[in-house]
Formats: sequence, structure tokens, C-alpha cells
Amino acid sequence: MADRLWRNVRLATMTGDGLGIVKDGALAARDGVITYAGPAVDAPAAGETIDGGGRWITPGLIDCHTHLVHGGHRAGEFAQRLEGAGYEEIARAGGGIVSTMHATRAADEETLVAGALPRLDALIAEGVTTVEVKSGYGLSLAHEEKMLRAARRLAAERDVRVATTFLGAHALPPDRTGDGDGYIDEVCDTMIPAIAAQGLADAVDAFCEGIGFSPAQTGRVFDAARRHGLAVKLHAEQLSALGGAGLAARHGALSADHLEHATVADVAAMAAAGTVAVLLPGAFYFMRETQLPPVAALRAAGVRIALATDCNPGTSPLTSPLLVLNMAATLFRLTVTEALRGLTVNAAHALGLADTIGTLEPGKACDLAIWSIDDPAELVYRIGFNPLHQRVRNGR
Amino acid sequence: MADRLWRNVRLATMTGDGLGIVKDGALAARDGVITYAGPAVDAPAAGETIDGGGRWITPGLIDCHTHLVHGGHRAGEFAQRLEGAGYEEIARAGGGIVSTMHATRAADEETLVAGALPRLDALIAEGVTTVEVKSGYGLSLAHEEKMLRAARRLAAERDVRVATTFLGAHALPPDRTGDGDGYIDEVCDTMIPAIAAQGLADAVDAFCEGIGFSPAQTGRVFDAARRHGLAVKLHAEQLSALGGAGLAARHGALSADHLEHATVADVAAMAAAGTVAVLLPGAFYFMRETQLPPVAALRAAGVRIALATDCNPGTSPLTSPLLVLNMAATLFRLTVTEALRGLTVNAAHALGLADTIGTLEPGKACDLAIWSIDDPAELVYRIGFNPLHQRVRNGR
Ligand SMILES: [Zn+2]
Ligand SMILES: [Zn+2]
Repeated sequence: MADRLWRNVRLATMTGDGLGIVKDGALAARDGVITYAGPAVDAPAAGETIDGGGRWITPGLIDCHTHLVHGGHRAGEFAQRLEGAGYEEIARAGGGIVSTMHATRAADEETLVAGALPRLDALIAEGVTTVEVKSGYGLSLAHEEKMLRAARRLAAERDVRVATTFLGAHALPPDRTGDGDGYIDEVCDTMIPAIAAQGLADAVDAFCEGIGFSPAQTGRVFDAARRHGLAVKLHAEQLSALGGAGLAARHGALSADHLEHATVADVAAMAAAGTVAVLLPGAFYFMRETQLPPVAALRAAGVRIALATDCNPGTSPLTSPLLVLNMAATLFRLTVTEALRGLTVNAAHALGLADTIGTLEPGKACDLAIWSIDDPAELVYRIGFNPLHQRVRNGR
Repeated sequence: MADRLWRNVRLATMTGDGLGIVKDGALAARDGVITYAGPAVDAPAAGETIDGGGRWITPGLIDCHTHLVHGGHRAGEFAQRLEGAGYEEIARAGGGIVSTMHATRAADEETLVAGALPRLDALIAEGVTTVEVKSGYGLSLAHEEKMLRAARRLAAERDVRVATTFLGAHALPPDRTGDGDGYIDEVCDTMIPAIAAQGLADAVDAFCEGIGFSPAQTGRVFDAARRHGLAVKLHAEQLSALGGAGLAARHGALSADHLEHATVADVAAMAAAGTVAVLLPGAFYFMRETQLPPVAALRAAGVRIALATDCNPGTSPLTSPLLVLNMAATLFRLTVTEALRGLTVNAAHALGLADTIGTLEPGKACDLAIWSIDDPAELVYRIGFNPLHQRVRNGR
């Protein structure tokens, strides 16, 4: 017998290719796992029955790309840019990613956790039950480990599933200027082995850009990750077309993220490898980007499209997954179905967790978002409005 | 002696031309009115002293342009457009403003209030203490009165100041197709007198556009409003340059709103008349507009710039004033100072309430927003994050 049964609910199960709508639905769980999600008429008996009042249930939202753990913020730099300061001027004044590196290095693990919690709470308040958190502002083994420990701690501080990603190859720290290959040696030969041995990361990511690391350097990071049994993903094609997305696909990456400048060759490689396209409309919006990601090509090739906040202090200080849905529709013209699948089932694939989360079906974790809405489209249409009625984690 | 004194606070008073920052500040109130806002060293004695913990205090936010009261929503239409449906197809299927008119006419006053409250609560949760609410979906005397009564009721249901605006000239109801002048006769000769007599509106607004009402018709509405002692404001230059903003200014309008297509002549007339420019970045964003409002010209002419959500079901289903700040900066390149003044002192001017609200200074209502931030720029920089610590209305 099930522990709990939600009756008088409408389901968007995200199974199949669409929203998987069940209008007169019921959902049952036992020991934190879904045992039934379907028509009310076939619902099993349960110890506790909850009247859902006709509300909609979706899988708990999954934010599959964030930099939630970091020191400081860059509001001052934002204000300066609006007053006309250029990027170079800001960099000379100590701004940019280096300022976040310094603030992150200066913070202890406790401070990083305390700083991340309000941001995490904002995600949770909108129904997030799983969040990915990257390192990448420490840029030395000790500081990267500290960031990943802080990320893991978030799962103890809040009832949320946390996937961690090591992003040592995010930027070249200023003390290594001119020594990109040497820094990548350290990432591959020292950092990845140490982090893998401690179980601090579930995946490895890199920033493959003209201002970041080259495809060759990125390939070395991927090889090291795979040698240590870690999945890979990539910040690719955000600012320029370097073929990083295709490279990632050929390395069996879970996802390639950003993708504004991805080519048809990248898309074809992603489709062949089953690599998920993670689109980040918050960064597109905040950076006033005009180059749109190749949504039509991704669709045509059958590449799964996921969405995420990319919450970070420099290019996407965004903590609203619901706003991500609206931005994906408004800016990228994703349909309502695509947007909602992007924060659920396809985000689960982007994290390699599709066996556990992302849909409402027997065997999946009972991570739910219950919404006071008439129509799932409302979750995408409204801007800055949160109709979450309740969030359920592991059936509770 | 003051009733209450906030100590250990930082103030952004919005007095003068900037943010009016007092770093080691204090604020005192008596009977709901500010009696002191300035350096802590000169603070008066008070019955109750509150330690503000170093937080920032701004005036309570003012949302000076909303359509918060309306029936239904248009999420379905939004979804259809993303699937490729055109505006005409949607109109033929009963969508567009006419669908909101039907839903609003079908709702009784109670239902309209109940529908508006969650949207109002979203504004209040981000520090709004004053909100303007327009009619304009009833489009007959009885239904417009019902909308305005519902708007007035919001101030009884929640601790918020509500300014109401009669917008009978929002659209031509379908039963009057081809009879725009006749409908304007009714607005001027029947509706405005009745609404003024009942004290249901504080101002009169119109939609001056090719798809709305002509400048000549708008001028007649303004004349009727002034005859009945009501202030005027205008939806102007959103879709085309008809000179409505200049017309409004010449009628002494409190504000001209939208303004994407406003000309230098409009701006000059607004500057001469002291008419406030209300910019609505939510509608700009949601409609994927590319024509920017003439911010540089408004700045150069010294026109006050206010901001608002324009919360409405068709073109701006937005209920986050903090997101308005970010959009004004990101999309319109307003500075942090301009953005914050836009939701406080300049919004007060747009409502003709600058004697009462909008700044922290003796004699103003003690309507406050108290924020857990380090820097006022954070209110503009962050996206989808609410650092409101507490909202104070009339000193409580
Ligand atoms: Zn990122
Ligand atoms: Zn409006």
C-alpha cells in the first residue's frame, strides 16, 4: 500500500514527448518513490490521502546549471557599466571574474554556504528540488575543494538534491597569466584526481572560449575527467564558434551549455551523442546578447533542450526558474511544452539523473511541485509571479 | 516625541537629484508621518527604538501604472502564439483584449477583487506601498464602475494605498465597432460625469494609438476629465508616433506612459509641462519591441522618468517591481539612480502624490521598504531575487 496519495489533481508527468497531461489524475508514493501517476480511477489505496483541490502537479523543478556558491556580488560593477564604464575600465578597477575569484578565495566554507543559502532559498521557493552547483571561482585546488564542499553542504542545510560540478577550467587565475597549458596540466594532473578521490564532484565542466580555454585544452580536461570516472559537460559557443559543443558531444558529454554560436555541425554531433543542449536565457538577457541559439536546428535534430538559471554574479544574477521559463519563451521562442520540459525531464538528462528524477512515473523520486494554476502555460506566461502551492521532496 | 525611531540604518531618501544617501542614518515617525530622516547623530527621542541592523531603507515602492483588476488571463493565447499563431488568428478565435473584456464583464466585483489580490500580494511582497489601478476592460459604464469599485476595495483588503484611474477609452467595445466618436461621446458625457460624481477615480487615462483612439478623441476625453476636476494621463507613443505625449502635456497631464515612439517635440512639451515619462519595460520585453524610448532626450530635457509594471494580461503579465528595475537598466540603460527614483519619487509625481509619498523626509507618509542588502545597486542588479526585510505602511 502507498504511504501517500494525492487525489483531485491534474498531472503534467513530462513522460513521452509532451507534457504528459492527466486531467483527472492521482499520484501515489511509498518510501519517497512514486508508485503511481495516472488517471484517478486506477489509483491505489494509501495510508494518507490528500485532496489536491484540482491543482496541477509537475515534477519538482531542476536547475541544471548554476554557480550558486561564490563570494561577493558585482552590483557595483553593474552600476558602473550603466554609468558608461567599459569592460576594460572595470577590469582595471579590479572588477570582472577576478573580483569574484578574490571574494571567493577570501571566504571560508561557512561564509560561502551562508552566502549561497538565500539564493538557494529563492530557487526552492519556486519549486526547485534539484540544483546543480559548479565550482570555478577558486581556481586553485584548495579553493576549488572549498567551493565543492560548500556546494555539498547545501544539501545538508536544505531539503534539496545537489549535483556538483568541478569547473577548475573556468578562467585562468591572474597568477598564471600566459601559462594556460600549465594551469590545465594542474587541473588534469592534480585537481581532477584529488577531487575525484574525495567524491566532491559528479561531473567536470570547462569554459571553452577565446577568453577561456581552447578546444585542445578542453579535450585534455575531458580526458582526465573520464579517466577518473567523472561525467563531462561544457560551457560552449556562448561568445564565439569554436566547435566546443561538437567536441563535448564527441567526448560523450551530458550537456553543452549556452550554444548561441553553435553550428549545424555542433548540433549534429550533439544529436548523435545524445548530448543535451542547456540554454541559458538569463545570461542572454543580462548580457544583451543578440545572437540566438539555434533552436530550430536543435528541434529538427531531436536534441533535448534543457533550461537553467546559470545563477552567477557576473553574467546572470538570476534566481528565478519561473522567469527562466518566460525568458526561454519570450526571447528564444520555445513553446510552453519545450520550456516546461526544459526545467524537468530534459534537465534531468543534462545531469545524468533521468533514471531518478524529471518525470512523474513509478520508480522516480517523489519530488513534486504543486501549483495553484488553471493551465500549465501560466507557469511560462506570468512574469515575476510565483503560484507554487507546495513543494514535495521524497514524498514529504 | 516620535512614536518610532529606526536606528542603525542606511537611508536612500530620494530627495534632491540622486539617491539621497545617508550612511549612518536614522528615521523617526509620529502618527504615521515621517518626522526625521537624516544622520543618526541628530535623531530625536522616540517611544520605541528599532535597531535596523545596518539595513537600507528606501521609500515604499510605488507602482504607478497597472491594470491589476481584470478577469481571466491570456496564458492560452500566449501558448498559441509560441506555436506560431498570428494575432489575427488569435483575434478570430476570440483572443486579444476582447477576451479580457468578456472575462471582466462576466466577473462580479467580488471575483475581480479575489483575482487581483494574488497579483497585489506579489507587489506588496516586494515592498510596494502604493499602487495605481486602471479600469478599461469593462468598456460600459456599469462594468467600468464595477472595476473601479473593485480597485478601491483592494485598499480595504490589504494595507496599501490605491490610486484609481478611469480608462474607459482603452479600446472600442465590439458592439460599438465603427462608432468610435459615439463611444467617446458616451465616455465624456455619461461615464466621466458618473464616475467623478461617485469619487471612483483619481484620474482619467486613454489609449491614443492607431488601434485605439485618435488625438482628437483623446483631447475630448481630457477636456471632459478636467471639467469634472480629474487629473489626466495617457498611454502614448507605444506603437506609433501620433503626438499623444505632447497632447497630454499640453493638457497638463500628470504622465505620458510607454513613449517608445515619442519625438523630440513630445519630449519638449512634456518638459515644459512637468509631465512625467512613465516607462514600462515589462511591456517592451514581453512584446519583443525593438524601438527604445528616448531616454537620452528625456534626460537632457530634465523630464522626470518613472517606472511601473503595467501589470496586465495581454502585454505585461508582470507582478515584480524589482524586475522592472532590472529591465529598466538592462533594456533601457537607466542608471541605478534613475531606476530607483523611477519606482519612488518620480512615480509619486506621476500620480500627483509627491506631497505625500515618494521620499523619506519630514511630512511624508512613513511608507518604507527595508532591505537586506549592502548596496542599493543590488535592487537593480539582481534578477528574480527579493531581499525585502520588512515593509512599513503609515509607520507600522
Ligand atoms: Zn555557467
Ligand atoms: Zn497600460
